Amino acid sequence: MFFKLDKRLGNDTAEIGDLSLCCVLLFNDFRYPWLILVPKKAGLKEIDDLSRDDRILLAEDTYVAARVIRELYSPLKLNIGSLGNVVRQLHVHVVGRSECDPAWPGPVWGHSPRQPYDMKALKVRKQQILDAITRHNFSA
Amino acid sequence: MFFKLDKRLGNDTAEIGDLSLCCVLLFNDFRYPWLILVPKKAGLKEIDDLSRDDRILLAEDTYVAARVIRELYSPLKLNIGSLGNVVRQLHVHVVGRSECDPAWPGPVWGHSPRQPYDMKALKVRKQQILDAITRHNFSA
Repeated sequence: MFFKLDKRLGNDTAEIGDLSLCCVLLFNDFRYPWLILVPKKAGLKEIDDLSRDDRILLAEDTYVAARVIRELYSPLKLNIGSLGNVVRQLHVHVVGRSECDPAWPGPVWGHSPRQPYDMKALKVRKQQILDAITRHNFSA
Repeated sequence: MFFKLDKRLGNDTAEIGDLSLCCVLLFNDFRYPWLILVPKKAGLKEIDDLSRDDRILLAEDTYVAARVIRELYSPLKLNIGSLGNVVRQLHVHVVGRSECDPAWPGPVWGHSPRQPYDMKALKVRKQQILDAITRHNFSA
């Protein structure tokens, strides 16, 4: 069984690159700096489906995503979450939050339909994030 | 500076014990099996405030909490999240979700005021969780 990205995750995001375990996706909603990490192994649903080594890799990939969001966008708070109530494939959200965002101080998940970037802004943001990940010396 | 549990976290929970890095709290809401892990170090707000070693310990403590919730309550889905929009002290929620819970399929955070256990049920649930953690050979 090979890894295949969930269709809904694919539709809602733009691909940035790969970290140690996960592919890094930009959630296509211009209202939040929002990355999604998806471990590239088939059949994962919960974190305890991962081996200990992979749980450590996931923690480190999450750390890189958190650093990147903080360095680039200086959010008031990071929100990190793995829910999967709608999309079952194991994935981790790393979202920069501010007091001005529409969902503050509630969670972003389920708040309102996403508002996509325009093509140019999406390209710029993807490149910003890719550059920042590369500065962290990861193979994005 | 010494670790001190945030007052609101203390008020909303019952203490279970300690794992490698974190104290384990039971969120006092009978509607969900819900643990909160709080790394016992002062001044933490975001996961990247932790050292690499502590990030690994946090990942392992989260794994134990996830295993315990799954073994005891067989939830349809785990929700794991570190938000901190209201309480800034770094903490991680591990919540068992089911299609019958009041917030499903949305997130539990910010959904509705908690509904506390009665004293006897709280005692039973605390003991169940403590026993399950102990079975995992951790020093709870």
